[in-house]
Amino acid sequence: MNSRERSIAEGILLTDQYQLTMAQLYYRMGMHEKMAQFDHFFRSYPDYGQHKAGYCVNAGLEWLLDWMESLQVREEDISYLSSQTGNSGEPVFDEDFLSWLKSSPPFANLTMKAIPEGRVVHPDVPLTTVQGPLAWAQILETSLLNHLNFQTLIATKASRIHHSGGNGLLLEFGLRRGPEKGANAGTRAALIGGADFSSNVGASHILGIEPKGTHAHSMVQVFLALGGSELDAFRAYADVYPDDCLLLVDTVDTLESGIPNAIKVFEELKQKGHQPVGIRLDSGDLAFLSIQARKMLDEAGFEDTIIVLSNQLDELVLWQILTQIRKESECCDVHPDRVIDSLVYGVGTRLITSQGHAALDGVYKLVAVRDNAEWVPAIKISENPAKVPNPGNKHVWRAYDQRGRATVDILSLEEEDPRKMDELVLHHPAEHAVFRILQQAEVDHIEPLLEEVWVDGEVVIEIPPLERLRQRRLDDVSKLDPGVCRLMNPHIYHVSLTEKLWNLKRDLIERLD
Amino acid sequence: MNSRERSIAEGILLTDQYQLTMAQLYYRMGMHEKMAQFDHFFRSYPDYGQHKAGYCVNAGLEWLLDWMESLQVREEDISYLSSQTGNSGEPVFDEDFLSWLKSSPPFANLTMKAIPEGRVVHPDVPLTTVQGPLAWAQILETSLLNHLNFQTLIATKASRIHHSGGNGLLLEFGLRRGPEKGANAGTRAALIGGADFSSNVGASHILGIEPKGTHAHSMVQVFLALGGSELDAFRAYADVYPDDCLLLVDTVDTLESGIPNAIKVFEELKQKGHQPVGIRLDSGDLAFLSIQARKMLDEAGFEDTIIVLSNQLDELVLWQILTQIRKESECCDVHPDRVIDSLVYGVGTRLITSQGHAALDGVYKLVAVRDNAEWVPAIKISENPAKVPNPGNKHVWRAYDQRGRATVDILSLEEEDPRKMDELVLHHPAEHAVFRILQQAEVDHIEPLLEEVWVDGEVVIEIPPLERLRQRRLDDVSKLDPGVCRLMNPHIYHVSLTEKLWNLKRDLIERLD
Repeated sequence: MNSRERSIAEGILLTDQYQLTMAQLYYRMGMHEKMAQFDHFFRSYPDYGQHKAGYCVNAGLEWLLDWMESLQVREEDISYLSSQTGNSGEPVFDEDFLSWLKSSPPFANLTMKAIPEGRVVHPDVPLTTVQGPLAWAQILETSLLNHLNFQTLIATKASRIHHSGGNGLLLEFGLRRGPEKGANAGTRAALIGGADFSSNVGASHILGIEPKGTHAHSMVQVFLALGGSELDAFRAYADVYPDDCLLLVDTVDTLESGIPNAIKVFEELKQKGHQPVGIRLDSGDLAFLSIQARKMLDEAGFEDTIIVLSNQLDELVLWQILTQIRKESECCDVHPDRVIDSLVYGVGTRLITSQGHAALDGVYKLVAVRDNAEWVPAIKISENPAKVPNPGNKHVWRAYDQRGRATVDILSLEEEDPRKMDELVLHHPAEHAVFRILQQAEVDHIEPLLEEVWVDGEVVIEIPPLERLRQRRLDDVSKLDPGVCRLMNPHIYHVSLTEKLWNLKRDLIERLD
Repeated sequence: MNSRERSIAEGILLTDQYQLTMAQLYYRMGMHEKMAQFDHFFRSYPDYGQHKAGYCVNAGLEWLLDWMESLQVREEDISYLSSQTGNSGEPVFDEDFLSWLKSSPPFANLTMKAIPEGRVVHPDVPLTTVQGPLAWAQILETSLLNHLNFQTLIATKASRIHHSGGNGLLLEFGLRRGPEKGANAGTRAALIGGADFSSNVGASHILGIEPKGTHAHSMVQVFLALGGSELDAFRAYADVYPDDCLLLVDTVDTLESGIPNAIKVFEELKQKGHQPVGIRLDSGDLAFLSIQARKMLDEAGFEDTIIVLSNQLDELVLWQILTQIRKESECCDVHPDRVIDSLVYGVGTRLITSQGHAALDGVYKLVAVRDNAEWVPAIKISENPAKVPNPGNKHVWRAYDQRGRATVDILSLEEEDPRKMDELVLHHPAEHAVFRILQQAEVDHIEPLLEEVWVDGEVVIEIPPLERLRQRRLDDVSKLDPGVCRLMNPHIYHVSLTEKLWNLKRDLIERLD
């Protein structure tokens, strides 16, 4: 894709064909400027096969807003659309519609609300709501989902891996295995969700985070091929980077060659007054080798060095490695905490692709249309009750219990304020018979989650720095019940409808049935 | 990401930090312009869990070449790199190295060979070889893998889904669930690998393929919310698109409402002289509903209409649907071929994310370094024999048997030509004891697979149109043993080393052991 092609493929045409044909239909029927509301939400947590998420981390909004802000309908886009022909050989899009499309500034009259990036989010809860003229709100669907689904998926995976690894720093290494240019979005999402640093230079730069890296096997191989040794390679590295010396020790033989050579070089560095950083292990039994490496480094007097682990790591592998280290260290006369506290995790493929669950099932559903002055809730009756979207314009709230723990996300009608209700009758979103009553006395506070981010064609929030998004994620995760954060079989966080919203949904379903 | 940020993150900094620190090390040691060869290959076919690929479809090269061609090292990139500091507080990159980086045109002295896009490829076979100055060849690694891994992965998945669906047209619908901007690369790869069309407007446009689409549930919902009916929505659609009328029939009730309403509208269209296109089914038991829909449409005289299926389709789901239709149709008095021949498949999430195996394990390994005039093979001894790369500069060949079937891919030393050998002693790439002898009489012909694509800073092939890449894929797949194409437990295609290459590898391993 060259730069001209990129400007075409990443502009207004970054959409599905049916969004444009529907927009023309609305235009033709005089409905294109009717006000509509769409909700964006996902239906279920990522399910990685043997394990499953109990929460997600919301991400992607800023880059969506960048796309919306920069969008123009250009002559080139219009001329392409006008060249499309249907089965009859006649143009698919008529001139009047295309003139309207060109003259109508994209998303000019839309109001978009969103749950801020970095916050913990749950299924069925509107993460983004879009209110505005039907045709433009419809056209936005594909790009909105494209920008938000992927980053939320990756931020969620990063949070899981981060928590599985305990206090160890998490480095994102996935650019080479990531989904082409989408890998930069993956790096950003990983940094929001749990990665401390990334190897991706460009993405780190634009996000204001220092990129990290060690060296590859190829560096050692070059020295070997030219008649030198692993030790020569390590010495060269230490010469060039005396204060940033992190050596990959598994090119030849980790225990027999790599670590002993690293220790030699570290001793030379120390004599010159430098502090060696540590080693990286990229193959073999990483738990066993970590223990051995720690022991050898400690015995050589390099107690402050770190051990970077890499090679197909994810939350389950880390869990297994840490479990094995806890069991096995004592037999080797090393305290497990000595080993674990020095670990850093380099995670590539399985983070940037969300191994086991490669797509968040985020959707964008029509929930209301304004007919004259009145908003009419919209519904789609599918065969699966769990898939019926919650109708109408809604508020989203999060209730915290007396311990400060998030206890339920509540969807209410727009005119409702659960903070003012004496008791909350909370309905399961799909099951008729399931509800519970929450007394205000049980609640510490209730917080609205959605904020306006786009009004009348403009971004209306100050874009927060990455640090702030990370802090939101840390705050929110710390307020979850530990059972919700469990890697496997997590406790189910409650998402409920108020009595009034539930009644509206039930009435609409019954009317259509 | 705004456009300024994009130009940073998708330029020379689209790499891992360690590529740049290694490049500086090579520069500092005077090794940066030593000639090196790296091979790009993958180690194993995608394994989707219950099923596994028996071949891959090579894709991504053109967009990699576009990236290489457009690359510039800009003042901004250099000034960012010069601002990086290490643990000592001193700059990571020195001025002399950065001057060299800026003054050296990217990839100017590299020669890159590749197996053409669209061709069937197998593990351990170099798909791309890069020969050139060590520093630049090293820097290229991350971006090369980023561009090639993802498209090859998706093209492979598309080929599987296409073959599972038999003759039915395959539409790629994944933009909304795809990996952010990487989704455009996914669309391209899907169109190379097996998708006939895509809903992605921009990507289709730049690839010269007509985009396809129907309409969404939201269109019907709008009419319902405004007091109209599903029939009103269908009529509106038929009015605006009389010759392209494809109706989504599951918003209310597929059999009771959707299909009967579609038939009414089709009758009205027919009376006005138009040919209705068909219907789309997006929920429920797609096999059962396809049979019922076919029956109802046929009985109403719309034998030429198509039935588009969508909703979490992939190769296994299609296989199951077609099997069920074959079993169940007769009981409903419909010939199964009537149903199957009218099916079109809309495949989204599971294609664009390669459901079940979300990353190809493509790697880029140093295989040789030139020391003065002589090329020295390089090797890395890892603990897993299957992971030892094949050393040295190599040729890649494909041998066809007397039936015209591809029977083995052969890696030889650069100076060897298997076409001139009387008999071929073919070694397993990792197992010492496994070899077979192929007589020239058993071979119809042997074809070299690599071609030069980049020489001295320039693309040296004419970029073929998408149609040509698709034709290559069709040709190559037709020459595979049907067992290799089997969805589950495919027959293993042979990849072998010549006797001389095997001996070289064995000697290097023994020398290092």
